[in-house]
Amino acid sequence: MATILIVNGPNLNLLGVREPHIYGTETLESISNNCKELAKTLGHEIEFFQSNAEAEIIERLHQHFSTPVDYIIINPAAFTHSSVAIRDAISATNVPFIEVHLSNVHQREPFRQHSYFSDLATGVICGLGSQGYLFAIRYIDQALKQN
Amino acid sequence: MATILIVNGPNLNLLGVREPHIYGTETLESISNNCKELAKTLGHEIEFFQSNAEAEIIERLHQHFSTPVDYIIINPAAFTHSSVAIRDAISATNVPFIEVHLSNVHQREPFRQHSYFSDLATGVICGLGSQGYLFAIRYIDQALKQN
Amino acid sequence: MATILIVNGPNLNLLGVREPHIYGTETLESISNNCKELAKTLGHEIEFFQSNAEAEIIERLHQHFSTPVDYIIINPAAFTHSSVAIRDAISATNVPFIEVHLSNVHQREPFRQHSYFSDLATGVICGLGSQGYLFAIRYIDQALKQN
Amino acid sequence: MATILIVNGPNLNLLGVREPHIYGTETLESISNNCKELAKTLGHEIEFFQSNAEAEIIERLHQHFSTPVDYIIINPAAFTHSSVAIRDAISATNVPFIEVHLSNVHQREPFRQHSYFSDLATGVICGLGSQGYLFAIRYIDQALKQN
Amino acid sequence: MATILIVNGPNLNLLGVREPHIYGTETLESISNNCKELAKTLGHEIEFFQSNAEAEIIERLHQHFSTPVDYIIINPAAFTHSSVAIRDAISATNVPFIEVHLSNVHQREPFRQHSYFSDLATGVICGLGSQGYLFAIRYIDQALKQN
Amino acid sequence: MATILIVNGPNLNLLGVREPHIYGTETLESISNNCKELAKTLGHEIEFFQSNAEAEIIERLHQHFSTPVDYIIINPAAFTHSSVAIRDAISATNVPFIEVHLSNVHQREPFRQHSYFSDLATGVICGLGSQGYLFAIRYIDQALKQN
Amino acid sequence: MATILIVNGPNLNLLGVREPHIYGTETLESISNNCKELAKTLGHEIEFFQSNAEAEIIERLHQHFSTPVDYIIINPAAFTHSSVAIRDAISATNVPFIEVHLSNVHQREPFRQHSYFSDLATGVICGLGSQGYLFAIRYIDQALKQN
Amino acid sequence: MATILIVNGPNLNLLGVREPHIYGTETLESISNNCKELAKTLGHEIEFFQSNAEAEIIERLHQHFSTPVDYIIINPAAFTHSSVAIRDAISATNVPFIEVHLSNVHQREPFRQHSYFSDLATGVICGLGSQGYLFAIRYIDQALKQN
Amino acid sequence: MATILIVNGPNLNLLGVREPHIYGTETLESISNNCKELAKTLGHEIEFFQSNAEAEIIERLHQHFSTPVDYIIINPAAFTHSSVAIRDAISATNVPFIEVHLSNVHQREPFRQHSYFSDLATGVICGLGSQGYLFAIRYIDQALKQN
Amino acid sequence: MATILIVNGPNLNLLGVREPHIYGTETLESISNNCKELAKTLGHEIEFFQSNAEAEIIERLHQHFSTPVDYIIINPAAFTHSSVAIRDAISATNVPFIEVHLSNVHQREPFRQHSYFSDLATGVICGLGSQGYLFAIRYIDQALKQN
Amino acid sequence: MATILIVNGPNLNLLGVREPHIYGTETLESISNNCKELAKTLGHEIEFFQSNAEAEIIERLHQHFSTPVDYIIINPAAFTHSSVAIRDAISATNVPFIEVHLSNVHQREPFRQHSYFSDLATGVICGLGSQGYLFAIRYIDQALKQN
Amino acid sequence: MATILIVNGPNLNLLGVREPHIYGTETLESISNNCKELAKTLGHEIEFFQSNAEAEIIERLHQHFSTPVDYIIINPAAFTHSSVAIRDAISATNVPFIEVHLSNVHQREPFRQHSYFSDLATGVICGLGSQGYLFAIRYIDQALKQN
Repeated sequence: MATILIVNGPNLNLLGVREPHIYGTETLESISNNCKELAKTLGHEIEFFQSNAEAEIIERLHQHFSTPVDYIIINPAAFTHSSVAIRDAISATNVPFIEVHLSNVHQREPFRQHSYFSDLATGVICGLGSQGYLFAIRYIDQALKQN
Repeated sequence: MATILIVNGPNLNLLGVREPHIYGTETLESISNNCKELAKTLGHEIEFFQSNAEAEIIERLHQHFSTPVDYIIINPAAFTHSSVAIRDAISATNVPFIEVHLSNVHQREPFRQHSYFSDLATGVICGLGSQGYLFAIRYIDQALKQN
Repeated sequence: MATILIVNGPNLNLLGVREPHIYGTETLESISNNCKELAKTLGHEIEFFQSNAEAEIIERLHQHFSTPVDYIIINPAAFTHSSVAIRDAISATNVPFIEVHLSNVHQREPFRQHSYFSDLATGVICGLGSQGYLFAIRYIDQALKQN
Repeated sequence: MATILIVNGPNLNLLGVREPHIYGTETLESISNNCKELAKTLGHEIEFFQSNAEAEIIERLHQHFSTPVDYIIINPAAFTHSSVAIRDAISATNVPFIEVHLSNVHQREPFRQHSYFSDLATGVICGLGSQGYLFAIRYIDQALKQN
Repeated sequence: MATILIVNGPNLNLLGVREPHIYGTETLESISNNCKELAKTLGHEIEFFQSNAEAEIIERLHQHFSTPVDYIIINPAAFTHSSVAIRDAISATNVPFIEVHLSNVHQREPFRQHSYFSDLATGVICGLGSQGYLFAIRYIDQALKQN
Repeated sequence: MATILIVNGPNLNLLGVREPHIYGTETLESISNNCKELAKTLGHEIEFFQSNAEAEIIERLHQHFSTPVDYIIINPAAFTHSSVAIRDAISATNVPFIEVHLSNVHQREPFRQHSYFSDLATGVICGLGSQGYLFAIRYIDQALKQN
Repeated sequence: MATILIVNGPNLNLLGVREPHIYGTETLESISNNCKELAKTLGHEIEFFQSNAEAEIIERLHQHFSTPVDYIIINPAAFTHSSVAIRDAISATNVPFIEVHLSNVHQREPFRQHSYFSDLATGVICGLGSQGYLFAIRYIDQALKQN
Repeated sequence: MATILIVNGPNLNLLGVREPHIYGTETLESISNNCKELAKTLGHEIEFFQSNAEAEIIERLHQHFSTPVDYIIINPAAFTHSSVAIRDAISATNVPFIEVHLSNVHQREPFRQHSYFSDLATGVICGLGSQGYLFAIRYIDQALKQN
Repeated sequence: MATILIVNGPNLNLLGVREPHIYGTETLESISNNCKELAKTLGHEIEFFQSNAEAEIIERLHQHFSTPVDYIIINPAAFTHSSVAIRDAISATNVPFIEVHLSNVHQREPFRQHSYFSDLATGVICGLGSQGYLFAIRYIDQALKQN
Repeated sequence: MATILIVNGPNLNLLGVREPHIYGTETLESISNNCKELAKTLGHEIEFFQSNAEAEIIERLHQHFSTPVDYIIINPAAFTHSSVAIRDAISATNVPFIEVHLSNVHQREPFRQHSYFSDLATGVICGLGSQGYLFAIRYIDQALKQN
Repeated sequence: MATILIVNGPNLNLLGVREPHIYGTETLESISNNCKELAKTLGHEIEFFQSNAEAEIIERLHQHFSTPVDYIIINPAAFTHSSVAIRDAISATNVPFIEVHLSNVHQREPFRQHSYFSDLATGVICGLGSQGYLFAIRYIDQALKQN
Repeated sequence: MATILIVNGPNLNLLGVREPHIYGTETLESISNNCKELAKTLGHEIEFFQSNAEAEIIERLHQHFSTPVDYIIINPAAFTHSSVAIRDAISATNVPFIEVHLSNVHQREPFRQHSYFSDLATGVICGLGSQGYLFAIRYIDQALKQN
């Protein structure tokens, strides 16, 4: 059984409120529940975390040094394009991670084409809505079983 | 009567202290008072907010979903050039806003030429000191009356 | 009492005719009248000038050397992005000036992001329609009173 | 029957004189005559205009608001690469237009690769000499008949 | 029941042979079988296609006009970065599609950072090996059920 | 009497099917017929060729060395922006050619602004639909008569 | 006797834990102790501060206005490359400062080549591990003695 | 005896008025007189022309076709950096020319580093004040004598 | 005895026909014969291949997995600058290769300065005509003898 | 009476030998003689120096600290574009200087458009052959007389 | 006991003479003496070398192959930005080195931001005047003791 | 019989010493001997020259004007990327030359991708070790025999 930390960046607490034509009407809580349910089925545990503060995300990642996690799923949202500090924090953990975006960043502003995370990630999923999280969990389940 | 939220970014609490040859000797409190006085005259209410923390600004903007505001004036200061997260937060509110800068950013470092806010704003005022806030309030007053 | 020269660039004579969804239905004459009215109230005089010809604008600015003005408001329109010659002319006058744009240039074509005037201006107002002129007059009124 | 305005930019009055190895020995007057003859055959009228002055071209385009034209053919010559003001003027008319160049701009200096007109035009013809004008007239004839 | 076309680009026939430290030891045939098996379980049918020839991929996409498909999954491989023609072909079909890459392109050569497909795709999955195909099928299953 | 080879690039066989709001409802066959009819009137012969395969276009151009043509009209479609090999093939023939695009490439994606053909062509016509082909034939007719 | 503020940016609390092959096994506490010891020897006092939060660093710098410091040593870590706000805060203090990096940033990712601090700093030391702090203290000692 | 046309661009009529710390206190008239005096000594005639209007400069250059000149000296001033039309006009004359700037353009704004004239000129003189004109006349005298 | 595969890209079948001032009058067949003769002398065997089709080149390279070769010489011609797919194919073989160009690509269009092959090749020879192939064979002979 | 140092960079010793269609048939010795003659007439002394070695030029400039010169004329030739060290040396002397080029660098390779000297020079003369030196001497004569 | 080679680039012999507001009044000899004194205290020996000639610096570095040194301190001065040859020479020695600049290069011309040495160096010190050398010696002392 | 000058740039005297994993263990002397032996066989004479000093290479090339050579082979090493002066010197000789690099520069730092020599050379050989010199000699032998 593995512990998977799911980290969500700024404004994702607005899911279901913010620009639903882009992100859909689903709330972050329902995503959390779906993730936990799938993880439970596969025999894993989910830690689901969201913050609008870069420092809180950094410190949540630092908790790995006291309470280790096995894999990370991160949707850095706007921090994808601006936070070297979270990049450094996740890199410091040496925990493999998958980068997930609800919307297809390639259809949005040019500055969203660059991610500070993708070159460090195992893989990236974007544009598939909240199912992106579930696919990441399924991937991790397989990856951990193969090791 | 409209509610206008005025958001001020990092270091603006230093006004009157920091580099007065650039920003003048006026304090943020006196700007706040002047804004409130003008708004009162025009029949509106000002919520005046400053923070050095990106997350606090994001969360102040999120409060709109519980306590709506009619218009926003934002002086993002240094976050103008770095915060995709505040851009996303203000965009999520769908509230029209005016971007104000005390100094003329076009006379400063090249990196200050790019704003993450201007393409979403109704308009931009820079270089006119604290009067920029008052002009923004006057504009909003007219704009709201025309609708 | 100050003399304020307001210079308007090419195609602004079409105001009220050209693409009203961008510039509104107001004519340049009514803007001129509103500016003169506000200036009169504040004790100043407005010289309101428009031309589609770069050379005429340059020569209007040169008139400052025979008939000085105290402050300039300039809406260079398309010349914002192409006229080094008007930049040189306004710089030669050594008269402080405010740059005004009716529309928000940051929402338009990329080549409209660069201005040959902003780094020389006291400040810049864009996107606030014809009120931009009035705000500039108010600013000048304050600035001249402080000196 | 349609009225087609043909606008020619700076130095085109030199045709037959200037660098004939590039532009041929035909004069602008003979091009005008050929255009008028073809238009007459097709049942249309040509207004043929040339100026070396940006402002005169702008003002010729503004005449559309008093004496409307149905389609414009423009050979902006050197102004292709420098005149935002003519771009704004032609855009203000909302009249569809075709951009014509006598020579193949793609074989000349790199700065001639950018046009301030092509993204607004119906289409562009270059390198086909004065026949480019005739093809534009033929196209307009067809386009107007289809509407 | 939906028909899903899975298109694979050049060199993917080498899977299991070519650089296994990057792509794993799985063959394209076993991926095809896994996709078909999952699709069958979900009630869909898979058309699995690979070619090293750009023209064959274009023509396979054109077959949609005689034998329509409901969704496309495409792993354009090297053509991701070079084929405007396949971009045009898939765009012409107006069929929604998901872009899949076995490896994490963000960890490879800079020229692999640009895709001619991502801005047209529903979403993109990379770096998750052959499971990327299965996740795409699951997503399509959900997407089609929601319509 | 001249032989004119008309070469059409990938996806043009979809004309009348693909995105008719951009390319119109005309089929490639009707364009071919119109071209042949006009050429016949002018006393020339048309060889009309389309392929989705770069190599087939290259080899059709190579046929010139056994069965020479007098002029080429090429609509390279997507290959405009990607095929150095067709550029080399058409350059090798030393046959003059005109580049034609049905749509106005200047209104589309930025990568469509670059052509590997324009600097070698006699001229370029874009945005005038299938009439572009007819204008090219008329130009060639005149050009050949002048020599 | 001078007061030297040493500011440390995000993730530096992980020293001795994070990627020891880059940063060594020394903890931030031992660096602090070494700095204080050296400063004491030289007759100065060290204020040693670390935070993962941009706002806390800004506010620590603002404390200078109530409790002034004589010199600052800053290792902005990831904020080196992203924080205009800390740049503005340290600039507002008008206190001279030295920028220190434990690792040689010139051997790392390209985005680490740009610092928002170096052009404002007295000097920069990188790649010399924790001794960089001690050298900065020695430099300050000399600089303050010379004034 | 040769006729030398000296063309001066916008704002040069302000010489002696505009920013004398850059351009000196000499007037354009005294430069004209000095040029004429030197030319007379050398046996040549000077036509001295200034205009703030691009079109007037173009048309002055076109006069060459009715009243030829032997050499041109041009100080295009601000038009150096913006006027493709004057470039085309001077190129059309096929008269050799020397480009002169009073100030050293290499010490001014970056946009002044590019000239639309230098690659067509015989040579360029900048930063040597009004003596630049005299040196150009001397050069022309020698050049004409050598032919 | 080694087997050396020599791969030639598009248009090289025209050698002796196409632009002889650049490529000389030698045919590809005579190059093949010269290569085979030299190889025979050195005790090796040549497989000489040319295609205008990217896919055929890819598939010729894939044949290595059934019929291995010891070294490859590739003249990718126009594909040098456009084919990621052939790059991937040759990389997949893990066979060392030498890149040869008949002409000096550094004297031609800027887009010919970039090769998708050079960073993977053992070495590159350009501008030495068909002798480049012979030198590559000589190099391979030495290299294989040293192992 | 002033001492003027004339410094000539690499390959200028070849004058009269190297590419006479660019530099003319005049030798460096005759230029030196002409300069000395003119200087003598004007009452000044010339030190004429040429070297192909960067270090020798640097050290010749350093001699100013033992044997001061009043003005420098420098034709850095190829070092114009590559030598930061000579830039630093000439800047260290604090002696005003004029940059001279025999040919018009604006008509040559793009890398010749950048000079490490022009922004520090009083002025620049290019394309006027060896007369450029004489004009520089004349300018210096005037400049020194005015002080 | 270690041997430390200190290499100084062009114009550093002018220290105390050249632009003292940037480099201070200290001479290179006094720096050498201070370095030797500190080294002696720590038990090491200094070889102090300066040259204005790139080749002499290269050859001084090559002497390492006959008379090895343990560590190098290099202040390449202007060669920092231009000398690939010294980069290659120092890299060839495989001796670890520290890069020192007296002034803060980040406050000077943009071309001084790039160093051909920093990515190969152990670390870099700039802006701390001649103390930078002493800090480098102290660092080396520690580094050598730890091995 | 021809005289071939072989010029070798900085650090090549270290061959056999410097980074043998890149350049091999062969010394420059053995390369010289191999070149001379091959040349002798073919009936030519080799002048073999190496210097670490740019000026010495320039002057060696200038010797051609007193003692002509028929062909040059140059391995400019680090000067490939920095020396405009050697480019000018070799160009001044008008002697055809071949550029040789021992290592494959396309696999090294990005700044090694640009050569100041390749566009002037007959051809370029890189990555084939010291055999590159021998191939160049063989090519020259053939080229001279064909003339």
